[in-house]
Amino acid sequence: MTAVDVTTSHLRENPFELAREQLRRVGTTFEIDPNLIAVLGECKKAIEVSVPVSMDDGATQAFKGYRVTHNIARGPSKGGIRYHPDVTLDEVKALAMWMTWKCALMGIPFGGAKGGVVCDPKKMSRSELERMTRRFTSEIINEIGPEKDIPAPDVGTDGSTMAWIFDTYSMNKGHSVLGVVTGKPLTIGGSLGRVEATSRGALFCIRDAVGKLDKRLAGMTVAVQGFGNVGSYLANFLHQEGAIVVAISDSTTALYNPKGIDVPAALAHKAEHRTLAGLKDAEAITNEELVLL
Amino acid sequence: MTAVDVTTSHLRENPFELAREQLRRVGTTFEIDPNLIAVLGECKKAIEVSVPVSMDDGATQAFKGYRVTHNIARGPSKGGIRYHPDVTLDEVKALAMWMTWKCALMGIPFGGAKGGVVCDPKKMSRSELERMTRRFTSEIINEIGPEKDIPAPDVGTDGSTMAWIFDTYSMNKGHSVLGVVTGKPLTIGGSLGRVEATSRGALFCIRDAVGKLDKRLAGMTVAVQGFGNVGSYLANFLHQEGAIVVAISDSTTALYNPKGIDVPAALAHKAEHRTLAGLKDAEAITNEELVLL
Amino acid sequence: MTAVDVTTSHLRENPFELAREQLRRVGTTFEIDPNLIAVLGECKKAIEVSVPVSMDDGATQAFKGYRVTHNIARGPSKGGIRYHPDVTLDEVKALAMWMTWKCALMGIPFGGAKGGVVCDPKKMSRSELERMTRRFTSEIINEIGPEKDIPAPDVGTDGSTMAWIFDTYSMNKGHSVLGVVTGKPLTIGGSLGRVEATSRGALFCIRDAVGKLDKRLAGMTVAVQGFGNVGSYLANFLHQEGAIVVAISDSTTALYNPKGIDVPAALAHKAEHRTLAGLKDAEAITNEELVLL
Amino acid sequence: MTAVDVTTSHLRENPFELAREQLRRVGTTFEIDPNLIAVLGECKKAIEVSVPVSMDDGATQAFKGYRVTHNIARGPSKGGIRYHPDVTLDEVKALAMWMTWKCALMGIPFGGAKGGVVCDPKKMSRSELERMTRRFTSEIINEIGPEKDIPAPDVGTDGSTMAWIFDTYSMNKGHSVLGVVTGKPLTIGGSLGRVEATSRGALFCIRDAVGKLDKRLAGMTVAVQGFGNVGSYLANFLHQEGAIVVAISDSTTALYNPKGIDVPAALAHKAEHRTLAGLKDAEAITNEELVLL
Amino acid sequence: MTAVDVTTSHLRENPFELAREQLRRVGTTFEIDPNLIAVLGECKKAIEVSVPVSMDDGATQAFKGYRVTHNIARGPSKGGIRYHPDVTLDEVKALAMWMTWKCALMGIPFGGAKGGVVCDPKKMSRSELERMTRRFTSEIINEIGPEKDIPAPDVGTDGSTMAWIFDTYSMNKGHSVLGVVTGKPLTIGGSLGRVEATSRGALFCIRDAVGKLDKRLAGMTVAVQGFGNVGSYLANFLHQEGAIVVAISDSTTALYNPKGIDVPAALAHKAEHRTLAGLKDAEAITNEELVLL
Amino acid sequence: MTAVDVTTSHLRENPFELAREQLRRVGTTFEIDPNLIAVLGECKKAIEVSVPVSMDDGATQAFKGYRVTHNIARGPSKGGIRYHPDVTLDEVKALAMWMTWKCALMGIPFGGAKGGVVCDPKKMSRSELERMTRRFTSEIINEIGPEKDIPAPDVGTDGSTMAWIFDTYSMNKGHSVLGVVTGKPLTIGGSLGRVEATSRGALFCIRDAVGKLDKRLAGMTVAVQGFGNVGSYLANFLHQEGAIVVAISDSTTALYNPKGIDVPAALAHKAEHRTLAGLKDAEAITNEELVLL
Repeated sequence: MTAVDVTTSHLRENPFELAREQLRRVGTTFEIDPNLIAVLGECKKAIEVSVPVSMDDGATQAFKGYRVTHNIARGPSKGGIRYHPDVTLDEVKALAMWMTWKCALMGIPFGGAKGGVVCDPKKMSRSELERMTRRFTSEIINEIGPEKDIPAPDVGTDGSTMAWIFDTYSMNKGHSVLGVVTGKPLTIGGSLGRVEATSRGALFCIRDAVGKLDKRLAGMTVAVQGFGNVGSYLANFLHQEGAIVVAISDSTTALYNPKGIDVPAALAHKAEHRTLAGLKDAEAITNEELVLL
Repeated sequence: MTAVDVTTSHLRENPFELAREQLRRVGTTFEIDPNLIAVLGECKKAIEVSVPVSMDDGATQAFKGYRVTHNIARGPSKGGIRYHPDVTLDEVKALAMWMTWKCALMGIPFGGAKGGVVCDPKKMSRSELERMTRRFTSEIINEIGPEKDIPAPDVGTDGSTMAWIFDTYSMNKGHSVLGVVTGKPLTIGGSLGRVEATSRGALFCIRDAVGKLDKRLAGMTVAVQGFGNVGSYLANFLHQEGAIVVAISDSTTALYNPKGIDVPAALAHKAEHRTLAGLKDAEAITNEELVLL
Repeated sequence: MTAVDVTTSHLRENPFELAREQLRRVGTTFEIDPNLIAVLGECKKAIEVSVPVSMDDGATQAFKGYRVTHNIARGPSKGGIRYHPDVTLDEVKALAMWMTWKCALMGIPFGGAKGGVVCDPKKMSRSELERMTRRFTSEIINEIGPEKDIPAPDVGTDGSTMAWIFDTYSMNKGHSVLGVVTGKPLTIGGSLGRVEATSRGALFCIRDAVGKLDKRLAGMTVAVQGFGNVGSYLANFLHQEGAIVVAISDSTTALYNPKGIDVPAALAHKAEHRTLAGLKDAEAITNEELVLL
Repeated sequence: MTAVDVTTSHLRENPFELAREQLRRVGTTFEIDPNLIAVLGECKKAIEVSVPVSMDDGATQAFKGYRVTHNIARGPSKGGIRYHPDVTLDEVKALAMWMTWKCALMGIPFGGAKGGVVCDPKKMSRSELERMTRRFTSEIINEIGPEKDIPAPDVGTDGSTMAWIFDTYSMNKGHSVLGVVTGKPLTIGGSLGRVEATSRGALFCIRDAVGKLDKRLAGMTVAVQGFGNVGSYLANFLHQEGAIVVAISDSTTALYNPKGIDVPAALAHKAEHRTLAGLKDAEAITNEELVLL
Repeated sequence: MTAVDVTTSHLRENPFELAREQLRRVGTTFEIDPNLIAVLGECKKAIEVSVPVSMDDGATQAFKGYRVTHNIARGPSKGGIRYHPDVTLDEVKALAMWMTWKCALMGIPFGGAKGGVVCDPKKMSRSELERMTRRFTSEIINEIGPEKDIPAPDVGTDGSTMAWIFDTYSMNKGHSVLGVVTGKPLTIGGSLGRVEATSRGALFCIRDAVGKLDKRLAGMTVAVQGFGNVGSYLANFLHQEGAIVVAISDSTTALYNPKGIDVPAALAHKAEHRTLAGLKDAEAITNEELVLL
Repeated sequence: MTAVDVTTSHLRENPFELAREQLRRVGTTFEIDPNLIAVLGECKKAIEVSVPVSMDDGATQAFKGYRVTHNIARGPSKGGIRYHPDVTLDEVKALAMWMTWKCALMGIPFGGAKGGVVCDPKKMSRSELERMTRRFTSEIINEIGPEKDIPAPDVGTDGSTMAWIFDTYSMNKGHSVLGVVTGKPLTIGGSLGRVEATSRGALFCIRDAVGKLDKRLAGMTVAVQGFGNVGSYLANFLHQEGAIVVAISDSTTALYNPKGIDVPAALAHKAEHRTLAGLKDAEAITNEELVLL
């Protein structure tokens, strides 16, 4: 992997160098054994596979796929698989390292992993995506498993992707292996509450932070930027806790109501119109104004 | 793989791009299906592992190791493992692709692979090398095996390296798996004739080429550049075939005798003195003069 | 599986055709994708094995055994093994399909399976049954397992049969695999409450049905036909719920007491005498009269 | 397996009953232990699988596939897989039993097996056949393997079918398993001489039979009925041995030349025109006349 | 296993004969089937391995290691591994048999096992102990596992030993297998409360015994002999229950205070000074006096 | 294993101590690294299993079985299994060590092993022997295999014993594993010439020894003590080489004819009468006289 990959990454900095620098700072601060830092600064295993796919037009295209395991000392590794044209090995390595940290900090018995395929899922048909996912799974099939490494949805992948991985893996093993992925559809054993899990985590953080200031959420005014999978659920959770959501926004629209926006109505409007534009009982502002509220 | 590969890989061109360009030229010349070229232009699987080793001074150093499989359509993949400070993933990929071609052209039922560790074996103690080799083997243990991928010695590795891999792999499996590597020492099942195999192959090529010109080796004059594992055996084979070896050279010395150098004497001299310098009955020339003979 | 299954399977209709017809009707009613119905209308895998057994008289008899898996999309398949002279492949297939439906309707993560051996267990010695069961298990040992397909007792088999399967399977694997069968004896890990589980399920159905009518079980009069593994426990459960059990029957005897039969006394009488005949405080009636109560 | 099998299986008798009757006659004649006959009269294991295939028109069709192992006492079982609309379980069982006998009589260390899918390969596209073969392989993947049961081409299947089975099996195992099928294309390890193997066997039988009569093939006149994979090679082998091939026939044409037909010319004509019709230097006769020569 | 076991095993009687005699007495008393006693009187499997270890002085020493499984009828076997110069096979067998009994009496689904290495851990460096443990684990790696046989700390071994076993086993399997040992350090999945578990068990026994006499612990006077891993925690538990701990002792010192010793102070003193000598507010007595209190 | 075992051994000396002493002498003579001698002086693994068998009288008897592997550095271990009442662990260990030496001296890629069961096969029925062998095989099934450790017939065992081991092992694996034992009956893959192999080896030794003395076997007079599996074949081989066999003996009879005994006649007599007693054309002598010839 050369510096060229790093350049094409969609961050300004090489994310793996960023993660390693963070690790070194932690090592220095807490006076951790440099030998341990030397080991934790590398990923245990990084796999690059070629994923040949018959495209709908009859051509065969070879996609590049990655699966990286950073550390398994505390249990099987865990981490998402992303489909994005800007995926690089160093990005995947950095994300795998951060997964190790997240699992360890939460005290759950998992290590860190991450994967990705360099492709543009928005330009591929559903059946091309299925064939690519199944072939990618076949190529990394010895690396994953409930006791080894457990993928999850990430940028550009979702429950269907997990179902394809689950089915490909299970056919290979000869029986249904429900534990090979998380983020499965509910009908084949997915977990309740996973869709809104990130928002709920944000709510817990905010509630704890507010508590540290000896305040309470109920009655506070809040502005929420973004109204997708995370922002919309978070706005609703805050609303349910009694906070007054005075401003919300999506990619096209920012809205303000000093008495509080009707969040359930906003959710229904967004579900129906795929945009916040046109929501009643709120005044249009700019995103910048929202941030400065 | 000879020093030529090393030279091109580290200095002027990316060897993997070179190999792919060769493949594309072959594809164009023989009008091969572009979809097939698209698949063969990528390596099936490339693994990068971190190899933490306790060095003799007590520090832990994390080396970077690679194992790449280019293709297994015709049988298990086969290819050397090299230890060299300039090893890169693209070099290993190129060498793996070339191994596929070599096996296919020879009609033997193997695919192509290659591996390497970024390290300087000349600066490491024997016990550091053993610990590094055993740990590297542990990290790639699911990739190799008599039916999957079979390592061999290469630049910077030898029969001892293979013995360590064989032992680590066998301990993991619980019984001796003689087929996991080639190039083992004879005492644990290595093949007779392997040491001089490359020279013998060179002899066959030269003999066939001479035959195509309706000439015979016996009585021809030849100059041999290099007097290591390949050149010294080749000079001797040519000598045995009746050719007159008028010039030989090693890294320090080039020698010339128009009536023919006494090759067995040169072998004995080299074995005793580790250099050709001082060999009797031959005149010192420069390496450039030798090449122009 | 109740007597109803047996009746339909052995007498009037091909049970597999019956089950497929039921599936087609459901498919039509709910407008399910015909391709899905085409797949669900077949059993994924049906195995017929020859089970040679040394009989007590020294002869070798080859019994025919079946194990059928209908579907594993929702998890490992699950279903009983029956020993009966009238077992047919189509009966076993139908029962496997119905198991898939039952598990899916209950929302438990299992698919459907069923098995059977064509034999008359009432005419075989216990050691012949053990040898037949162990050999049958050996022949299907690659098909079953806690993650693949999990047998259970059925017509003509019981906890001892499961213990033999468990032991044969565990010896093959080299360690105790408690999850390979359900319906084991309690001492080797069987579940409490399994013996009366069918009756308890019947109680729940009756109680729910009564509730839908805005009535309560307490004080209702009930007649229970059959006093074996299902009927006797059900009569007792209904008695405990406060219902007045006015009539019970077994294969030889039907009894009636309009003020309520003393069910615990009936259970004790049955346990002691293996028949209801002779139970006090109840009037003999015919089975037909019982059904018409 | 020749057309004779097909004829008997589909028209007059249950082939499995036929095979069992043959076995009983052998048992009586040689006074074999009846217990042994009881065991050998059954197939060890018969598997029926459902093979759902996405057809080119978008519909899903569920084909029925079989794989039967008759006996493995002498080694892994061996036998073809046939694709034909008239395949039945009893036909497959009979063919598996006959394979056991054939292997045992030849003294080779294999048992007998056979398989088949109920389908009409002449009405399916090549990609439908590939999808069906790969799915069928997946469903029986635990049954086959170089040490367990080894498929081969049969009626309606060929080297391509074997290549699909080989590839599906190898992907499942993670490495190329060349021994999982015989009858592979030469390029992936098939055996030289397999195409004409049946004819060569017929030649050996004829030569031995002729020898027993104290005669020699050279100079004998022969008529060969059929000019496909078996008959055409046989006619040529007999021709090469010096026999005078006076008559040949295919499904449309029978030809006669008392001085001997030019067999190499006939082979060339057949290869070019796909029929014997129009071959020079031979007189048209009827197939009945040919048989009576 | 307590010091009592050690004493009897090394001094007076063969512990395995002792255990078998206990079994025979139980068999006679409860009239158990002699065939069952015959089977339970033997250990299912006893393994003796040679464990060559590179010692710090460069020599290779071959230690003798044992692992014995007595019975697995109720689940995987369970039992400690001890490092002690007096370990014998018969001692290990006896301890394995007693483990079967203990697990069965407690009703937990495990069988009995035990292991040991003949060595003096007090005379070995930590890195010698690690190398010996890892090699011993490699030699018995096919015998242990979460579903087969699960080691635990015992005399001369501790959490570190278990961590080495866990790591060696996990590297062999290719993923972290947390269930292969119990008694791991908390950071890699050990159980809270394990250190004081033996004392807590002793407390429960004492409390139950006192209850049977219709007395209560609170206010009773107690003397505790031994102040190590078991005695010190027990003294504290008794103290917490309200008992008056009038005497304690360690290997050098016995102390008495009729009003009650300050147990928390004694624990702190012991932790600081590694001995009870010098503890205030208590009168020195002899160990014999303590026992006679 | 205690000194008691050693005492009951049927040799005057502990055979394992004898073997180790031989090893130490070799080590001293050839100045072999003492660390290597320390490792080679121990057996890698020794297993003792309890083998419960249902005897024909209904009782269960628990036999003691051993399987010892001395060394596997050069390949899978190899060695016989003996059934004899005097089998001890130390005897089995010594024989395993000697097998390592034998294989290494012959240059064949195998290590050394040996096994045994403490039983008196002459006092057991054939079906008791089969049940014991099958259970013993089950207990050591993880230790043996074509790539791990390969049993062979030895004292008290024969081709039938190997066939039972082969069948038990193959049933466990699910397919015929011909390589798990040597010394199988010819019909299931045994090797031609194995029965007389030991005699043939003795012939080769004698012939070479005679050659070293510049003599020839033809015309020499020889006496052969013992006329069982080894002696009878050897006498015949020597006879075929032209030697004059002047004396032979079995357990009851010693015979002498200075002109040469008719060895083929003696073989036929022994085969018919199971004793040499009564053979014509030979004079009865004592065994002592034979040895002194």
